Amino acid sequence: MTVSSADAAAAPAPARLGERFLAEIREQPDALARLLDGADAFERVARTIHERGATTIRMVGHGSSDNAASYGVYAFGLLPGWTALRDSISLTVYYDAALDMRGCTALALSQSGRTPDVVEYLVRARDRGAYTVALTNDPGSALAAAAEDVLPLAAGPELAVAATKTYLNQVAALGLLAASAAGEGESFVGGLRDARDAVSRLVHELEPRIASLALPFAFAGRMFVVGRGAEYATAREIALKLLETCRVAAEPLTATDLAHGPVAALDPLFPVWAIASDDDTLPAVLEAAARAREAGATLIASGSAAAAVPGAAYVLGVPRLSSPLLSPLLSVVPGQLFAWALATAKGLDADEPRGLSKVTLAR
Amino acid sequence: MTVSSADAAAAPAPARLGERFLAEIREQPDALARLLDGADAFERVARTIHERGATTIRMVGHGSSDNAASYGVYAFGLLPGWTALRDSISLTVYYDAALDMRGCTALALSQSGRTPDVVEYLVRARDRGAYTVALTNDPGSALAAAAEDVLPLAAGPELAVAATKTYLNQVAALGLLAASAAGEGESFVGGLRDARDAVSRLVHELEPRIASLALPFAFAGRMFVVGRGAEYATAREIALKLLETCRVAAEPLTATDLAHGPVAALDPLFPVWAIASDDDTLPAVLEAAARAREAGATLIASGSAAAAVPGAAYVLGVPRLSSPLLSPLLSVVPGQLFAWALATAKGLDADEPRGLSKVTLAR
Repeated sequence: MTVSSADAAAAPAPARLGERFLAEIREQPDALARLLDGADAFERVARTIHERGATTIRMVGHGSSDNAASYGVYAFGLLPGWTALRDSISLTVYYDAALDMRGCTALALSQSGRTPDVVEYLVRARDRGAYTVALTNDPGSALAAAAEDVLPLAAGPELAVAATKTYLNQVAALGLLAASAAGEGESFVGGLRDARDAVSRLVHELEPRIASLALPFAFAGRMFVVGRGAEYATAREIALKLLETCRVAAEPLTATDLAHGPVAALDPLFPVWAIASDDDTLPAVLEAAARAREAGATLIASGSAAAAVPGAAYVLGVPRLSSPLLSPLLSVVPGQLFAWALATAKGLDADEPRGLSKVTLAR
Repeated sequence: MTVSSADAAAAPAPARLGERFLAEIREQPDALARLLDGADAFERVARTIHERGATTIRMVGHGSSDNAASYGVYAFGLLPGWTALRDSISLTVYYDAALDMRGCTALALSQSGRTPDVVEYLVRARDRGAYTVALTNDPGSALAAAAEDVLPLAAGPELAVAATKTYLNQVAALGLLAASAAGEGESFVGGLRDARDAVSRLVHELEPRIASLALPFAFAGRMFVVGRGAEYATAREIALKLLETCRVAAEPLTATDLAHGPVAALDPLFPVWAIASDDDTLPAVLEAAARAREAGATLIASGSAAAAVPGAAYVLGVPRLSSPLLSPLLSVVPGQLFAWALATAKGLDADEPRGLSKVTLAR
């Protein structure tokens, strides 16, 4: 069948590929600012956690929300010195395990607030004695209704299927809650304001040159994304963006895990993205990058210490912020822009990846 | 340079590709039997955990050891009802976070007992108040020396670089410790004996027909391995075997996470391996498999409910055992044999994957 010019004229003008995804990447500084407007809620929830002695933090979420939770492990561990874990949803929801959750805060992350097993988890966690908190973009959602307290994600409507600004706000929110719990909420808010300005400058600076950086990867079928510590969350999130928007089989690995098996799969057609931040995990990341280079892999380095990665063919540096817990807010941005540019180069629409919908109701 | 026939005659006979790897797969029932001979140590450590009130279980390890730890989350959650987590090593070792580990057991998993950051983690966990236990194949190792108690893995020397029998024994050991803690050690030992016999029969039955099943995947570059609940550990371990021995970019995913992004990357050249066990997580796995099939992916189904996966092109069933906590001991075996057969079909030596060594000293 051919399309007549009359039909073509009647059809709505085709949207530019990935334009909503790009718009939401650009909008992240504003989304961060909105989160900070609601900082009081974080102080209140932090106080309640103390009052209830609920200082083991059980986080649940899927996809980008679960990636942000990886960051939470470090935020709660480094600031108030609390144990935080990405809890198993299936243990509680499918197996109905009789876990005693007294002394715990169950913190559920869901942009839509509608992810069924996350809602069900929170209902059961409350029955098991946990203090329940929802971090969601929709304070009117089923998740918010199931929780004792709600932290507003305040990212604003996210239209692209692949998350960007909601991920960034989730990371910032977990950092802010942890800092509030440590009595450092005010200074962390200051750090987040600096991060917001830095994200704004970074998008402005990187966007015009990202297409030429992404183009050589148009036919890459697989990739590892390596990070450690607080940046492991970034590695997971960048890998997920590449998977869902660019259809690259991108797997996140901690820097050390690379050497425990996966390095054997590398060759010159299997690029490795290393997130190198200027913190105590840097030596492990540099060692992993050197190992990948030795195996012939093309290296992409990003992060505040990207320039320190020897043999990197592509360097996507970001400014250094005042704390390793602020860096992940910047480090993810080159990955988001790269995913947008690579998807566009491949003729894929990052706004609507095939087979996905914005609200995932999967079991 | 050509090799003269005289040189060829003088050279040692070339080993059959992957022969040690295969021998160790076959040896697993014996390794399990050795573990059971040491069941007393598990009762003793379980008692100490109770006496010290150290009922939050922090597990650490890399590679296959970390995969086994994924199983531990379910074993401790379902049997004594304890919270178990795969702890962040970098939080304690690199960032030196001031975590209060009183009330915790730090359980370190390392075949060799020499993984540097795992040893360092255990030293620090003890300083922070944890009860420290090493699960290792080498009771004379640095890790064993750093721990207050040692659980002998008793798998016997493992010569192939890619782990098989040490993984199986780690899974069995975590189950046995959890069962002992729940006062169910004796019946679990009975279950492990059944599992041992079933592994023996399964290897015998599957080995002769695995080559023809693996052959069509000789040029597959990427794969997802999907499992949920107790079988998520199996998904992780099968993916790691495929990565390190076959150089397939195989990524493990929970059944639900597949729908949260990665499904968008699937196409007919991107196979999906689904581990379907006859337990409460089965509906989630079947739903994920159907979603993968819809995206055009070729499906490999394994596990006790493999036959229930609609549209699976390859079905590698295993017998059903008496508990979902025993199934993972069987479910991993088809993956091990498949990895051996696929590596051999590709002319790769599963005994010595390029770039790996048996004891990994990576940071």
